[in-house]
Amino acid sequence: MRRDHGGNIDEAARRYGGTDWIDLSTGINRRPWAVPPLPGAAWQALPTATALTHLINVAAAWFRCDPTCILPVAGASAAIQVIPRILPRGSAHVLSPSYNEHAASLRQAGWQVTETPSPDHMSGADLAVIVNPNNPDGREFTADSLVALAGRVGHLLVDESFADPRPDLSVAPALPENCLVLRSFGKFWGLAGLRLGFVIARPTLLAAIAERTGPWSVSGPALAIGAAAMADHDWADETVTYHSEACLRLDKIACRAGWTPVGGTHLFRLYDTGDALAAQEQLARSQIWSRRFPYSGNWLRLGIPGSRAEWARLSQAIAS
Amino acid sequence: MRRDHGGNIDEAARRYGGTDWIDLSTGINRRPWAVPPLPGAAWQALPTATALTHLINVAAAWFRCDPTCILPVAGASAAIQVIPRILPRGSAHVLSPSYNEHAASLRQAGWQVTETPSPDHMSGADLAVIVNPNNPDGREFTADSLVALAGRVGHLLVDESFADPRPDLSVAPALPENCLVLRSFGKFWGLAGLRLGFVIARPTLLAAIAERTGPWSVSGPALAIGAAAMADHDWADETVTYHSEACLRLDKIACRAGWTPVGGTHLFRLYDTGDALAAQEQLARSQIWSRRFPYSGNWLRLGIPGSRAEWARLSQAIAS
Repeated sequence: MRRDHGGNIDEAARRYGGTDWIDLSTGINRRPWAVPPLPGAAWQALPTATALTHLINVAAAWFRCDPTCILPVAGASAAIQVIPRILPRGSAHVLSPSYNEHAASLRQAGWQVTETPSPDHMSGADLAVIVNPNNPDGREFTADSLVALAGRVGHLLVDESFADPRPDLSVAPALPENCLVLRSFGKFWGLAGLRLGFVIARPTLLAAIAERTGPWSVSGPALAIGAAAMADHDWADETVTYHSEACLRLDKIACRAGWTPVGGTHLFRLYDTGDALAAQEQLARSQIWSRRFPYSGNWLRLGIPGSRAEWARLSQAIAS
Repeated sequence: MRRDHGGNIDEAARRYGGTDWIDLSTGINRRPWAVPPLPGAAWQALPTATALTHLINVAAAWFRCDPTCILPVAGASAAIQVIPRILPRGSAHVLSPSYNEHAASLRQAGWQVTETPSPDHMSGADLAVIVNPNNPDGREFTADSLVALAGRVGHLLVDESFADPRPDLSVAPALPENCLVLRSFGKFWGLAGLRLGFVIARPTLLAAIAERTGPWSVSGPALAIGAAAMADHDWADETVTYHSEACLRLDKIACRAGWTPVGGTHLFRLYDTGDALAAQEQLARSQIWSRRFPYSGNWLRLGIPGSRAEWARLSQAIAS
């Protein structure tokens, strides 16, 4: 069964009409790292061990962890499907509300899943799952608190899909032995179509995952583009600056319309709109797509506009 | 543990030196379909259901089967890892010698694997695995004989990774209920770095596989390029013609050097060289990489050269 997700802009366009949509329904950066022309070999040849090692080394510098603890995968989603099947099945405590694919994938693999609002209630679980910063509400957990949590559970899975602008939050540099960290490439670098992500964990855990994903699970273009983009620290600095200012600006626009900021990350903001369906439809009439949640009638999540034109359209649409 | 594979051209280059290698160690077409500039959305946005459906419809026309029976995956390898885990575990009979990843992946998933030289010995198996045409020896099995085999086993997995030039061999149009067919995009279209393949099976089997691979398992570029390439039937016709002639030509060159053709497909040829290691080293001195097999001291497999310059270098290297 298909779970509720963002990224369904094609359905929105069919429902509401129009061809000039701004998709703010995801947390994917709308100012992507610019993909240069690729060498033909990236498309044609099987991905080589050399290209894989290069990406891992660049990623290790970005994540500030040991290269032997990094496994590139075809998107964080791929890892979310596999991890429940390489750990000994048992009880999983999953922070909630959060990205719904974790609980769904664990249940599918036969885990006993408890959704819980706080890490305080996770002690003794065979597996604890935390998204940090959390999606959609932006709750943050310090690296120290997660290291401590790792000491109270069987395994700890920390999904850091939105942590690239917040290296201070990452548990990757400390990496407890029983911890698995997920990182997404597509969101911060704005290239979600590429399908690239990383698992950061001790080598024995990584070997079990790699055995399931098989040889060549990451595409040649993903290896080449990932390595080039993640080495571009100037671009990353500018991106963090833009998104920091953009968050303040978006919150201000929302407040002016009577929405209450609930939280968010550098890559999306969450608002209590009073009536999420009405707010979503209001924006959709201006061909701006947003994200509602099945468990809340009030919450609406918005990604960050990527250009002056997008800001202008959004301001007008919210105020209208 | 990493199994023995082709596609290790970077290691060959390190061992023998030189920077101008012709990689004939794989069966990947060296005259790839030409990738046009992609729309930014293919990289940036999450792959949409619309793009996925379009690829499936184009693929259904090429495979001559129902679109509901097609699941795009991130390369045939991805499916080889997952299929042993969605079928009820038991005894698997795998045609041998063949592509070694099938037996390895089944054993890893806890199957009792018997490698057997003929489909005649597979009756009663919970799972029969046939590569058709077979890699590396090119053995062919008629679609009718495979439909009959399906009637004598629990499930039948047919790996048609090299069948694109031989639609007459494909069991996809008949598709018995207990049959899973694998197709590779990277080999015939020469774009192995893209990671695209297909499983063709009844919808209930596909749903179990999709549940394991998760949402967005195929990249945006793979959806876009796959759909465009597989609709280009003129290119496919020319490619089959080129490779048909190329096989005859390569066999002739090999025979002149005293090698005996063992078999092959449109995309590679297999030779009994008398001494595979010596033959491989002879070609490597001219920076041409070939494929040996751990189970044969005589066999050498060669992909098909892609240009006049490559033919000239290979002819000279074999004769030297």
